[in-house]
Amino acid sequence: MPQFMSTADADFENRFTTLLGAKREDSPDVDHVVAEIIADVRARGDAAVLELTAKFDRLTLTPATMRFSTAEIDAACAKVSAEDKDALELAAARIRAYHARQMPEDAQWTDEVGATLGWRWTPVSAAGLYVPGGLASYPSSVLMNAIPAKVAGVDRLAIVVPTPDGVVNPLVLLAARIAGVDEIYRIGGAQAVAALAYGTETIAPVDKITGPGNAFVAAAKRRVFGKVGIDMIAGPSEILVIADKDNNPDWIALDLLSQAEHDESAQSILITDDAAFGQAVAQAVDKRLETLERRAIAGVSWRNFGAVITVQDMDQAVDLSDRIAPEHLELCTADADTLASRITHAGAIFIGGWTPEAIGDYIGGPNHVLPTARSARFSSGLSVMDFVKRTTLSRMTPEALAAIGPAAERLAQSESLQAHGLSVRARLDRLNRGGT
Amino acid sequence: MPQFMSTADADFENRFTTLLGAKREDSPDVDHVVAEIIADVRARGDAAVLELTAKFDRLTLTPATMRFSTAEIDAACAKVSAEDKDALELAAARIRAYHARQMPEDAQWTDEVGATLGWRWTPVSAAGLYVPGGLASYPSSVLMNAIPAKVAGVDRLAIVVPTPDGVVNPLVLLAARIAGVDEIYRIGGAQAVAALAYGTETIAPVDKITGPGNAFVAAAKRRVFGKVGIDMIAGPSEILVIADKDNNPDWIALDLLSQAEHDESAQSILITDDAAFGQAVAQAVDKRLETLERRAIAGVSWRNFGAVITVQDMDQAVDLSDRIAPEHLELCTADADTLASRITHAGAIFIGGWTPEAIGDYIGGPNHVLPTARSARFSSGLSVMDFVKRTTLSRMTPEALAAIGPAAERLAQSESLQAHGLSVRARLDRLNRGGT
Repeated sequence: MPQFMSTADADFENRFTTLLGAKREDSPDVDHVVAEIIADVRARGDAAVLELTAKFDRLTLTPATMRFSTAEIDAACAKVSAEDKDALELAAARIRAYHARQMPEDAQWTDEVGATLGWRWTPVSAAGLYVPGGLASYPSSVLMNAIPAKVAGVDRLAIVVPTPDGVVNPLVLLAARIAGVDEIYRIGGAQAVAALAYGTETIAPVDKITGPGNAFVAAAKRRVFGKVGIDMIAGPSEILVIADKDNNPDWIALDLLSQAEHDESAQSILITDDAAFGQAVAQAVDKRLETLERRAIAGVSWRNFGAVITVQDMDQAVDLSDRIAPEHLELCTADADTLASRITHAGAIFIGGWTPEAIGDYIGGPNHVLPTARSARFSSGLSVMDFVKRTTLSRMTPEALAAIGPAAERLAQSESLQAHGLSVRARLDRLNRGGT
Repeated sequence: MPQFMSTADADFENRFTTLLGAKREDSPDVDHVVAEIIADVRARGDAAVLELTAKFDRLTLTPATMRFSTAEIDAACAKVSAEDKDALELAAARIRAYHARQMPEDAQWTDEVGATLGWRWTPVSAAGLYVPGGLASYPSSVLMNAIPAKVAGVDRLAIVVPTPDGVVNPLVLLAARIAGVDEIYRIGGAQAVAALAYGTETIAPVDKITGPGNAFVAAAKRRVFGKVGIDMIAGPSEILVIADKDNNPDWIALDLLSQAEHDESAQSILITDDAAFGQAVAQAVDKRLETLERRAIAGVSWRNFGAVITVQDMDQAVDLSDRIAPEHLELCTADADTLASRITHAGAIFIGGWTPEAIGDYIGGPNHVLPTARSARFSSGLSVMDFVKRTTLSRMTPEALAAIGPAAERLAQSESLQAHGLSVRARLDRLNRGGT
């Protein structure tokens, strides 16, 4: 049974704080193993990657067969039904259109002293995308990671996807093709992350690695951070639904379950201003759990981490939501737009009862890679911004340097950085002697 | 003596690759100590912070004296000369004006199926800024970290600055006041980072921690990452100057030395298309090193990591620069603007001979916290963007859901996530029965 609580309860603050602090994931400590794997790949390149792939994925490859050939990708794509292909293409088009609006703009201006200032954005040259194998091999994740990179202008985008026993999901290859991925390697684990970061004889190194993975992949990403850029380390998925009584309890139940079915560590919370509605939703969840394909997983998640919170009014709901800082926030209330405008911390907001969160997972357009575990307080979902970087630009004229140089010299002196000051002073002296 | 090399040399590629790969910094492994300090602060709060401050900074504080009082800050600010104050205020005004232009814009639009999509930016609620004590206690760093946070709209900005033996740089307190910092604590080290991340009885926790520090601070930031956001872990400073022969060798020498004087691990590289000019600059460096106050530090940096590279033409210079991906790039050539437009990877570009890099350290306007150690390939300098986060927004109408919902359902089925599909299907069924 999920937890039921009400802000009217005497022990509410205590229980809510406990809910917020609940540790939902026990990451095994694999750091030592991962360090060895990375060192091995750095030292022996392809040979290490091939041995580790044989060991972990029971798959014998050669440098020549590490990468999917065009013919193999063609063959896999041909297996996908027209309906699935159409759905992927619609999703890709919508994701592309949304992310195209995220491209930041260059700027340049001349200020009152005559200094020309600005910045320029450029894409990361090469990016690598980790795609999990097996059950969690999601074509939608390929689109969500690859399309922002390509929209940003990343020239070379490589995917690594483990194929245990040689099994691959054809939809993953099709999604990669639709997204414009340049290279696909059938390797995974920490060895694949190391290969992307440091390069091997066959795989050229990349500058940035994104994408979800297991504890080994997460540990490897942490370790190669600095050598390359990485995206966030994602935790288990979460949804918070704020709903008033004018909703269909079954719809809300399905929305809660669509997070719970991801993972036993997922968390689904309902906040409502009507206790009876909360009970009705909980009953609808139980009923759906009787027949749901992934009822074992969803049931564990709902019983261990689910919660139904009754509030006195929607002001309380906003406050609690910002304390939760949810990855996904669904607002099913009379004036959902106004409520949305009052939220400060959330990865993604789904507004109104016709916007189930699953739309955002696949086809809405916004990215489904979002900050988990309360990190929406300080971070954002994946976007084009993750694949570009900014170079700042400054150009002084002699007049501009004369205007602001003395202050720079003064501050350099106050920090005892003499050469800094002299580099300005030498030029000012020339000006004072009438030169330019 | 710095290294001299030319792209015309037979062994150039080898030597250049070695230069790129040179490990300039041996970070001591303090991770174990730092883990203990963080655990202690989490367990015992103020008491642990005070004990560690007594131990490391030889300073006895109480919860009441951990924070600088307004009167103490007033007194410190009164000690600063009018000239230094004017210089700091000019710097702050220029940094503020530059960063104000970085505020990203919200967006919202309705697309062809009637879905309303968009995003909204909100500031991080509370941020903490680490300011090193002692020699490296730079008021300019306070401005560069604090102003972007305040421009972003961060409500609560706390500074931690260790004051070994009680000594504090008054300019640091004045810079904090000018920048609008809300709280200043006289603590440092891993214990200060832990206090900011987890909070104590006296210090409320923050959501994001930025600012430079020693190996303990860097290790602590890595460890609290996830609980809070952090900025990059900065390495030793670097400059690349690309200069043709029509420059004053002494100016270029001073620009190279203004990095070298930071740190024995700093790196200064000159690329020129005129070997004789390269020699003249090296001689000018030697001459300045005779009298420079920080000649010991700058000399070690220049001898161990400095380089003068002769190229055949500026095309080669652009290629080498992008391989270096320098933190600071100074372009002192005839057509420096065109050259700047051809550069892909650099933290900051200083264009033309009247723009010494030191201007950017203090007063130009752009941030001086920049990506080091080739990370300009995938990351950017500190900016307003580090203190805001984006919430994506989606709102479907019944018609929009009818248009794109079936594709979402299809993709959910292909990923065996039944509840995802059902959450869409339940709503589509209502529509098919004519309801909305």
